[in-house]
Amino acid sequence: MSLEKTIYVGPFVHCKSLNELDICTTGQIGVDEHGKIAFVLRESAGQPTSTQKGWENAKVVRTKDNGFFFPGFIDTHIHASQYPNAGVFGNSTLLDWLNTYTFPLESSFSDLKKAARVYKRVVARTLSQGTTTACYYATVHVPATNLLADICQSRGQRAFVGRVCMDRLSPSYYQDESVETAVRDSQACIDHVRRIDPHFTLISPIITPRFAPSCTDESLAAMGKLHQTTGIPVQTHISENKAEVALVRDLFPTSTSYTHVYDRAGLLTPKTILAHAVHLTKEERTLIKTREAKISHCPASNTALTSGAAPVRMMLDEGLTVGLGTDVSGGYTTSMLAECREAIFVSRHVAMTDGHEGGEEAKLSVAEVLFLATRGGARVVGLEGRIGGFEVGMEWDAQMIDLGATVGSGEGDDEGEDEEGLGLKRGLVEIFGTEGWEERVAKWVYTGDDRNTAAVWVRGKLVHAQMSFQA
Amino acid sequence: MSLEKTIYVGPFVHCKSLNELDICTTGQIGVDEHGKIAFVLRESAGQPTSTQKGWENAKVVRTKDNGFFFPGFIDTHIHASQYPNAGVFGNSTLLDWLNTYTFPLESSFSDLKKAARVYKRVVARTLSQGTTTACYYATVHVPATNLLADICQSRGQRAFVGRVCMDRLSPSYYQDESVETAVRDSQACIDHVRRIDPHFTLISPIITPRFAPSCTDESLAAMGKLHQTTGIPVQTHISENKAEVALVRDLFPTSTSYTHVYDRAGLLTPKTILAHAVHLTKEERTLIKTREAKISHCPASNTALTSGAAPVRMMLDEGLTVGLGTDVSGGYTTSMLAECREAIFVSRHVAMTDGHEGGEEAKLSVAEVLFLATRGGARVVGLEGRIGGFEVGMEWDAQMIDLGATVGSGEGDDEGEDEEGLGLKRGLVEIFGTEGWEERVAKWVYTGDDRNTAAVWVRGKLVHAQMSFQA
Repeated sequence: MSLEKTIYVGPFVHCKSLNELDICTTGQIGVDEHGKIAFVLRESAGQPTSTQKGWENAKVVRTKDNGFFFPGFIDTHIHASQYPNAGVFGNSTLLDWLNTYTFPLESSFSDLKKAARVYKRVVARTLSQGTTTACYYATVHVPATNLLADICQSRGQRAFVGRVCMDRLSPSYYQDESVETAVRDSQACIDHVRRIDPHFTLISPIITPRFAPSCTDESLAAMGKLHQTTGIPVQTHISENKAEVALVRDLFPTSTSYTHVYDRAGLLTPKTILAHAVHLTKEERTLIKTREAKISHCPASNTALTSGAAPVRMMLDEGLTVGLGTDVSGGYTTSMLAECREAIFVSRHVAMTDGHEGGEEAKLSVAEVLFLATRGGARVVGLEGRIGGFEVGMEWDAQMIDLGATVGSGEGDDEGEDEEGLGLKRGLVEIFGTEGWEERVAKWVYTGDDRNTAAVWVRGKLVHAQMSFQA
Repeated sequence: MSLEKTIYVGPFVHCKSLNELDICTTGQIGVDEHGKIAFVLRESAGQPTSTQKGWENAKVVRTKDNGFFFPGFIDTHIHASQYPNAGVFGNSTLLDWLNTYTFPLESSFSDLKKAARVYKRVVARTLSQGTTTACYYATVHVPATNLLADICQSRGQRAFVGRVCMDRLSPSYYQDESVETAVRDSQACIDHVRRIDPHFTLISPIITPRFAPSCTDESLAAMGKLHQTTGIPVQTHISENKAEVALVRDLFPTSTSYTHVYDRAGLLTPKTILAHAVHLTKEERTLIKTREAKISHCPASNTALTSGAAPVRMMLDEGLTVGLGTDVSGGYTTSMLAECREAIFVSRHVAMTDGHEGGEEAKLSVAEVLFLATRGGARVVGLEGRIGGFEVGMEWDAQMIDLGATVGSGEGDDEGEDEEGLGLKRGLVEIFGTEGWEERVAKWVYTGDDRNTAAVWVRGKLVHAQMSFQA
């Protein structure tokens, strides 16, 4: 499908390196018919866009007041099926949370109508929050998992869609019957995606052994074999909670560590996404680095379930590849922007601990968490050449951020505003006019929400827009 | 001013005790001409409201789908003047944050026009987030502080408005000239409030020595004397950050502790609000308890500035009175709902520490943080008999929460919704229809925002309403 050539005019912000935001206040980014970035112009204020050869008739999309373009977020770990439980977990911790809240909900996805209701909602919601790529856990059910893939494709969200494999330590009403059915059902979901998106351009299947405790040695080995033979990526959980780590030690007495369980099964490769990684030993981190496996850091979930505070700075310093995940519904929010804030805050709690992981240098900055949410995530999902930044040749997975008119400028959106110029549509970010650009970005991260996400594109296609957005 | 007698019909939720939510799904609360609760009926479904004698012609306000009435929030610590810096603090900690971000901003409130722009905004914003009572720090400036009092009164927000006193360790361009001018200026602000609200019905002055490091012994003693002679309440900071605690030890070598500094000055009484209280010793907590002084817990700020994680459970177990404060702009948010979530999360980090403060029992539940934000706050500001709950004789400081129509019910607010029934006005809370009431409340706390605050009343008067609210 061919798109209209478009020039995106206005400030843009993306991440240059882990701690460096690249802020261009006068940009023009040309996106071609295939959704690829053809040119990036800087300091183009006053320069008519039509001077770009071959782009004289291109469509122009401009930011509004205090607006900017930013790469779409990459959520490297989210359980789409658990969305109805977002915010509901009481005072539980991982293992009782699974039995009390999670398994009963997931098992209900045998009902396709229910699955449709939830999956449509979570895809629409995450798109509206600027998530252009999501690594989804679905459930064990083949039809519902395939439906999730269909919904992502029809809504235009880039997604990794995983049918969950689990053959023990889960309720009898909700698990794989055997290793054979687990392989067969996983293969069925892979085949479905191949049918709807043969080159995995937008949607990719992902092999998804839930986590070591709920998989026998045999099923892990079978998933490892499937991974090795198909080259399809893998996602699972690792070392989230101390009781879980102890359980893995008991269940796999011949393994030297939790990480070793996956390595032995052929599941620890450059295409493996490991969620959480809170309590890894030095040896495990070294093994993960050697295998080039990737880490999805899920701060909101880790705090909510008192799993722990992952030592992200240490992992980054050691050269591990880290992205962010919302981990709905261990995490309460589908918003990657909120998750950025949570990552900053968890890093501050790490900084306040006395151990070798702590100290001021453990703190993650606004620039760093935005890097993790975009470039970092792109590396985690194996798409670092294609998404996560604004470079020529990359695809236009982007969001247009609108921080609203400067307070008192009289240029606000009148509808829904009260006498003081507030207004639900405007959102909570307040620009008083004296802020520098780095401060504007910080205000977005700390006080922004979906109301500031005016429009979202994936591969150049508009996939979400507020009513106020004039395409 | 006489109000129209009103019956609020629908579910209501308030806090009965620290860990007990009182949820009545079929309530009727009658509020009289003076804004006081005249009756509270439960299980009134089907019962016509007109049976209540003398209330046949009362106005009726009903909740919408998945809506409920909840007491207004009480923010026990917020720097109104720092609002333009919300979300802006980089990687700073308390003492450098003051010099880099805070003092330059506060000093600019010598400009009344600027003060008006900020103060109007912060009052409107906090009202829209359900804050019916706020304990404000203003700046050292008398005219701007008086303006804040005027704005609170004209918008109808219950407020404690404090002129900041500080006569050392601050820039020469921003401090009291002498102890005499500090007393004179504080008295001028007290006199102003007495003029506009003689009985402090809605607005109260509050004596506000910034914190021990920025006050000399003499100015603390003078403020203590003012407090003792006028009976006007006091607010200050205590033991926020370890470097600050060390500084106080150096500055007050004859005091036995930070708490003792205030006690010696006559500033530690039942009418004293102490913000932060992160690093208090057992002896200090005992002294605070003996003096019946109150604590404002500010979790978002404490994490943002890596000040520490206050041991709230321990303070509660020891019998201290605790409320919540947003501490804008050490805290990034004006929303007490967000602060509730932050309090839960900080308590989980406390729970994950190994010391005697830690362990599972340190975790605060949804019910507990809502208690702190309402009943707890009422005790902190000395209004426990008047606000914070729905009891006959209390005043109607309340918010109408609207969680939005159940997903897929087809009853959503159409305006601004996309094809999946999302919509900016609706907000982020998702009710799928199977949630119990406790789960609905949890979803509100974790995923709600100002979009769910349909209307807000103080003393029976409507002080904020969304466009969709039909009064």
